[in-house]
Amino acid sequence: VGDGLDAMFGTEKMAAIFSSSARVEAMLRFEAALARAEARAGVIPNQAAEAIAEATRSGGFDAEALHREARTAGNLAIPVVAWLTEATSEDARGHVHWGATSQDAIDTGMMLQVRDGLDALDEDLIAAGMACEALATRHARTPMAGRTLLQQAVPITFGLKAARWLSLTTRGIRRIRGIRAGLPVQLGGAAGTLAALGADGIRVADLLAEELGIVAPELPWHAERDVVAEIAAAIAITAGAMGKIATDVILLAQTEVGEVTEGVVEGGGGSSTMPQKRNPVHAPAVIACARFAHAAASVIESGLAHEHERAAGAWHAEWRAVGDLFVSAAGAAARARAMLEGLDVHPDRMRINLDATRGQIMAEALMMALAPRLGRGEAHRLVGEVAARAAAGGDLLGAAAEDLRIREVLSEEDIGRVLDPASYLGASEAFVERAVGGFRALQAGRTVTA
Amino acid sequence: VGDGLDAMFGTEKMAAIFSSSARVEAMLRFEAALARAEARAGVIPNQAAEAIAEATRSGGFDAEALHREARTAGNLAIPVVAWLTEATSEDARGHVHWGATSQDAIDTGMMLQVRDGLDALDEDLIAAGMACEALATRHARTPMAGRTLLQQAVPITFGLKAARWLSLTTRGIRRIRGIRAGLPVQLGGAAGTLAALGADGIRVADLLAEELGIVAPELPWHAERDVVAEIAAAIAITAGAMGKIATDVILLAQTEVGEVTEGVVEGGGGSSTMPQKRNPVHAPAVIACARFAHAAASVIESGLAHEHERAAGAWHAEWRAVGDLFVSAAGAAARARAMLEGLDVHPDRMRINLDATRGQIMAEALMMALAPRLGRGEAHRLVGEVAARAAAGGDLLGAAAEDLRIREVLSEEDIGRVLDPASYLGASEAFVERAVGGFRALQAGRTVTA
Amino acid sequence: VGDGLDAMFGTEKMAAIFSSSARVEAMLRFEAALARAEARAGVIPNQAAEAIAEATRSGGFDAEALHREARTAGNLAIPVVAWLTEATSEDARGHVHWGATSQDAIDTGMMLQVRDGLDALDEDLIAAGMACEALATRHARTPMAGRTLLQQAVPITFGLKAARWLSLTTRGIRRIRGIRAGLPVQLGGAAGTLAALGADGIRVADLLAEELGIVAPELPWHAERDVVAEIAAAIAITAGAMGKIATDVILLAQTEVGEVTEGVVEGGGGSSTMPQKRNPVHAPAVIACARFAHAAASVIESGLAHEHERAAGAWHAEWRAVGDLFVSAAGAAARARAMLEGLDVHPDRMRINLDATRGQIMAEALMMALAPRLGRGEAHRLVGEVAARAAAGGDLLGAAAEDLRIREVLSEEDIGRVLDPASYLGASEAFVERAVGGFRALQAGRTVTA
Amino acid sequence: VGDGLDAMFGTEKMAAIFSSSARVEAMLRFEAALARAEARAGVIPNQAAEAIAEATRSGGFDAEALHREARTAGNLAIPVVAWLTEATSEDARGHVHWGATSQDAIDTGMMLQVRDGLDALDEDLIAAGMACEALATRHARTPMAGRTLLQQAVPITFGLKAARWLSLTTRGIRRIRGIRAGLPVQLGGAAGTLAALGADGIRVADLLAEELGIVAPELPWHAERDVVAEIAAAIAITAGAMGKIATDVILLAQTEVGEVTEGVVEGGGGSSTMPQKRNPVHAPAVIACARFAHAAASVIESGLAHEHERAAGAWHAEWRAVGDLFVSAAGAAARARAMLEGLDVHPDRMRINLDATRGQIMAEALMMALAPRLGRGEAHRLVGEVAARAAAGGDLLGAAAEDLRIREVLSEEDIGRVLDPASYLGASEAFVERAVGGFRALQAGRTVTA
Repeated sequence: VGDGLDAMFGTEKMAAIFSSSARVEAMLRFEAALARAEARAGVIPNQAAEAIAEATRSGGFDAEALHREARTAGNLAIPVVAWLTEATSEDARGHVHWGATSQDAIDTGMMLQVRDGLDALDEDLIAAGMACEALATRHARTPMAGRTLLQQAVPITFGLKAARWLSLTTRGIRRIRGIRAGLPVQLGGAAGTLAALGADGIRVADLLAEELGIVAPELPWHAERDVVAEIAAAIAITAGAMGKIATDVILLAQTEVGEVTEGVVEGGGGSSTMPQKRNPVHAPAVIACARFAHAAASVIESGLAHEHERAAGAWHAEWRAVGDLFVSAAGAAARARAMLEGLDVHPDRMRINLDATRGQIMAEALMMALAPRLGRGEAHRLVGEVAARAAAGGDLLGAAAEDLRIREVLSEEDIGRVLDPASYLGASEAFVERAVGGFRALQAGRTVTA
Repeated sequence: VGDGLDAMFGTEKMAAIFSSSARVEAMLRFEAALARAEARAGVIPNQAAEAIAEATRSGGFDAEALHREARTAGNLAIPVVAWLTEATSEDARGHVHWGATSQDAIDTGMMLQVRDGLDALDEDLIAAGMACEALATRHARTPMAGRTLLQQAVPITFGLKAARWLSLTTRGIRRIRGIRAGLPVQLGGAAGTLAALGADGIRVADLLAEELGIVAPELPWHAERDVVAEIAAAIAITAGAMGKIATDVILLAQTEVGEVTEGVVEGGGGSSTMPQKRNPVHAPAVIACARFAHAAASVIESGLAHEHERAAGAWHAEWRAVGDLFVSAAGAAARARAMLEGLDVHPDRMRINLDATRGQIMAEALMMALAPRLGRGEAHRLVGEVAARAAAGGDLLGAAAEDLRIREVLSEEDIGRVLDPASYLGASEAFVERAVGGFRALQAGRTVTA
Repeated sequence: VGDGLDAMFGTEKMAAIFSSSARVEAMLRFEAALARAEARAGVIPNQAAEAIAEATRSGGFDAEALHREARTAGNLAIPVVAWLTEATSEDARGHVHWGATSQDAIDTGMMLQVRDGLDALDEDLIAAGMACEALATRHARTPMAGRTLLQQAVPITFGLKAARWLSLTTRGIRRIRGIRAGLPVQLGGAAGTLAALGADGIRVADLLAEELGIVAPELPWHAERDVVAEIAAAIAITAGAMGKIATDVILLAQTEVGEVTEGVVEGGGGSSTMPQKRNPVHAPAVIACARFAHAAASVIESGLAHEHERAAGAWHAEWRAVGDLFVSAAGAAARARAMLEGLDVHPDRMRINLDATRGQIMAEALMMALAPRLGRGEAHRLVGEVAARAAAGGDLLGAAAEDLRIREVLSEEDIGRVLDPASYLGASEAFVERAVGGFRALQAGRTVTA
Repeated sequence: VGDGLDAMFGTEKMAAIFSSSARVEAMLRFEAALARAEARAGVIPNQAAEAIAEATRSGGFDAEALHREARTAGNLAIPVVAWLTEATSEDARGHVHWGATSQDAIDTGMMLQVRDGLDALDEDLIAAGMACEALATRHARTPMAGRTLLQQAVPITFGLKAARWLSLTTRGIRRIRGIRAGLPVQLGGAAGTLAALGADGIRVADLLAEELGIVAPELPWHAERDVVAEIAAAIAITAGAMGKIATDVILLAQTEVGEVTEGVVEGGGGSSTMPQKRNPVHAPAVIACARFAHAAASVIESGLAHEHERAAGAWHAEWRAVGDLFVSAAGAAARARAMLEGLDVHPDRMRINLDATRGQIMAEALMMALAPRLGRGEAHRLVGEVAARAAAGGDLLGAAAEDLRIREVLSEEDIGRVLDPASYLGASEAFVERAVGGFRALQAGRTVTA
């Protein structure tokens, strides 16, 4: 349902790409390119192709009215072709939509919208990635508690966390570009044989793809929708990846954790009743958007069971679901970007939280320091005992220093060194570098839409 | 995504019920009722309640602007309460939203929209049911092939098929009315304790429910969303039931079956390339709508895992998903209605199809005629053999009449009688009567919104 | 996939109810009851009914072998009926499965399994409810931070939180009992007309329902699966409700929150590498189970679009999905129960967390104390300012006491009283009582399966 | 739920790959490879690595018992590592699981199972593809009705239909191989920093990947599950593609269409009551399997919102869902293969159906024959009129021949030639060749698991 919530769970840019008029325009781009391709193949006169292309650019259609007619006609191509036929000069109009079927116009039009949608998403993801990169770089050595099953585990750095967000974003962009490179034209005619174009069918399809700058597929794919399902999955996974980042932000922003807050915007994050509240605003929206994208993708994927040469229902569901998918994904990416760009990070709270268990978070480090002598299993058991004693009231350092078996291996000074979080960050920095490197390679290679 | 496709996959009426301005108005209805309830409970002055109620009716808000502010604020209640505070006369404005939290306004407002939505759906379903009833009654004795696993099975009547569609519709209406009767108000204050209302909280909640004509729940349900998930499931199942009817229509309308066609509307069901085409138009839209409703319900149901006293994301997702759900369900019901009201039924083709297998469809009848003498298992085996012989070239009557074991039990005349589809319709008519009776009881008992 | 994970994500009891042999046995229960009903209706001889019933109790079948045959035959009823026919004494075997079709046996059998499944679930939910009740009662006055959007909001009690878990559980049980009361028999014959039973069909269906203790529906529902979809939705929502409880437990058990821990079981909740770890064990399993249940319900609900008189695929999917649904829901309920029964609650940490913001959590209370004099909006603004000042370094009490506008309304002593969490718990206790009352009414009314 | 239905909706081979014991073995393969990698990196002694590897091959574990322990422990790695430690000779056991965490073993083990699963799926898909190829080649010139929206559209060939099934299968195989090539090892240690391995972490991870023959990822992906979600999507889409083929088969096998039948297997496709029935058996199972795969993928994809460094629930859900996904997909592929290999094709019925509309299916051909002279729009309108006249009683040839405007352009002989389906098959044969070519390239390039 389109309404004021669009601003909350989408972007204006993406909404415009999948608007009623953009849908009609994309179909008209198909019709113009088809005519040009047919002219190049000698199927229709050059002049006709020019006249048709001109009519497609005339802009005189009423997108909402065409959609209303589509409700009765059964699909949007019927009124669009009728309008274009009227809009084309009389001598050329006989060549409009030559040899094509409604689905050719609708599917190819959709692919053109998808291409624009992928480019818009790419932009937001690049921006989100830049925000992740900045956080990763700035905090490459900022220690914080790593948490598994929401329990403090061992130290990590905030830079590493941001680097992992970046790696998700990088893979999302790669996924999107992979999809973009393979977007196929649809041209099969009435039932996928290209019969109406006689011997020229495949040639026209190839030229059409060339005209539009998308791929000529091996076969028409009228009823083989894995093509669309793959796009859907890629987009939904990418939106879901943004949801992971938002989940982390919400958890880190908890009152009791307090390691990040969403940047304060005038009038943002308040409560209608609680004066003290600074609620996360972007992060919940990202999570909601990821769920919408998942649902839209699910509609598309459940439509794989197309009937015969064109489905009665599953195809129709795509018309709406593809737009919902992209708008939701755009919402996820754009608001993740805003969340990341404004994120306030609190290294002091990270430090406090690291120390909150009085050393428990360093139990693995202590175990690994003992393991070469005691064996891993025995060291695990021993440190487990010591940690339990410490948990009952005290710190791990003290409890360890009092344990004779430990003291046989480590001096009190050794133990102190072992229990320093900063000494136990492993490959965190190297991973930050890798993630940044991967992203930068991607930024460099960006292909921009003409 | 709201756009021209709304006309295809929804209804204007339902879109209006879940529009931006209707959302704001429902929240204002909450605020007015809250003020009245608080005045009745002696919590705020009567005059203040009147002034607040007056301001809610003033209509001077810009719904889209409020939604834009909500993007920053985090939820819609914040700007709505701010607007209402401004719009209320100075002496009373201090009592606006007294003791409530954003979620109270948003959730109760949503329930008011849901109530309107259920009523609108009820109307479309009653109309769809009437169309089913007419078909069931008119064709109570029209024999056709029953089909299991899409293979001809035994004869049924078209009336029985329509009666089963009616029973689905009847149960859908019952489901919706059951939901409607239990819609709960939300009033819990900041975290569900009603603390800001001191000792008056529960009393105010009861009066608020009375003011709005919905139910006062045992406890606030801020984070216990089974309430919303149940609504979602009921609506999605009802939309899915419409999808079953549409599936049957599409299958019956196949060129090779030809037993029904969607009524011809000027400009409807054509093809942009095939001049002869009379495509189903409503049925595919019903199927698409059912899938959208299922997806929206899935988003809502996956949000059951609300965090603590209010979720960060799962709650936000409801804001959009509930409207999507109802608009899609309305599309399913309204287009099913249109499909059923205009349905052309072809008893002649039903007869031709019944006869197409030259008696095979009556194999069970023959088995049951032999079973009292031969036993069911033996009769099944024997008729299986005879049917296979007939299938190889001939009709079942002939093959049966030539079989000596059958002729020991049945004369040729008996066999002829047994193989008459009209003699083997069982309880079809009784079931039609039952389905019609169930629906009429429902029509009579309809409760209309005040 | 059945394997060792069953122990983790299900219960043995429920797995047994939906096992291969239980499936066959439920179908045999149908066949025995059908024979008895037909004998009572005078359709088959009494002796035949007795012999058939005896054979169904003989137990000599190989459930796995019958399932393997079903793979070829197309459904399980075909080999089961063949086996039963063989197992029945010769004079009676001719009356086995009289007038019925495979789907009658499969669907009714499934309903009998569902009844057993609902009863098993009821038991686990009652036990989970008792654990909630104990927590709610014990902690009815234990204050803790209420949290919205994972930010501290206002105080609640842990008793209220447990009471809300209890209310979810209570509604789940009500839902399940509502479903149980309406489980319908399936008897329609080959395509839902009961033609093979001639004039006796409806009478036999009624008697069959009586024999089995389930409901005789208005019409057969071979292809109208809203019946099954409603069961699925009810179960999935109930499993999802358990997921909400588990989500809260995981969040409360976070190292930085520490308000509850899952009871320590020998060998439980450790880590293969971190000696100090006490991970939640049940709660993650509950969440996983809730998601499995949701997915299984989604498969069932997407099958509403049944074709004609029996679906080719959607029906088959139910065979597995219904068992998956119940086993997952049983896992959710049983492990939620174990989690709740063993839950360690830490009121001291609750108190520490309540105080952690140095009064910010009481900002609404302060606002409401000022609102009668300043108006709610003005009080909100003023307390917002004061809270921001306090947040910069100090406590709310001090900041409020220093604010002249506040001091015009409240003395320092007043402010201290207002900022005491224990004074701002609203209806928490009353809600606990309500939730407990609702649950107890349910316990009393429990109907146990014969 | 594992039970007799596994035979119906899965394959034994895939069930074995995802069985309890295979799960344990895959984890042991990880532990052995980790030890070898660490020995190569000089982290642990060579002898220790050999002893550990030997213990992993000893086979003395009880997989079900380990799974039961996992229920209490929280994950399977804990008891597996404990068992392996015991099973390893005393001097080496101190080096078991060195520097790793449970998730490293579980995730890498899962990837090894996934690799085996992909290979098994590849085999079934290749076989399904070969069956498609045979059908496509054999029927490259067998004309049949193309059907859009389940209405006859224009002629196609059965070979083209099978070629499109083949293209789906080919793309599925490509997708699976793409996934297989990128399967990543998991090695991050407790929270993804590799801290327990000090400076050797990344080197060990690289060597581990080499040992196992899978990819060393840029970063550990403990909580970045797009990796798993992509696998899930690829598999579910491929299963869904099989569902499309099955849908077509069911529709073509309808009594009234009769263009294909599933090959008769002794005891297959019957009915417990209807002696004449030859139901599709494989196709419905394929459809059910595709839906199960979709549901399992949805569980995985909804788990993208992992919390922090390891999720509490979403990760656990993968343990079961990945196996469900692969087993269902194997069921889809294996039964699609069986369906295709045994498919009986009836060109005679295809011809009869082509002629059933007395020429209407050739309306587009007639339009295109007139379009060069009349223009496409005018020709469409004119043929539409003529087709409607013919539909009212007569054939298109006659109606066209009587129409003066048509006769101005075409002689009666021309019209007859235009209306011959065999003359209007377009690129059907070329498309068959393309699809076969694409598949053969794939067969040639098949990489087989060592």
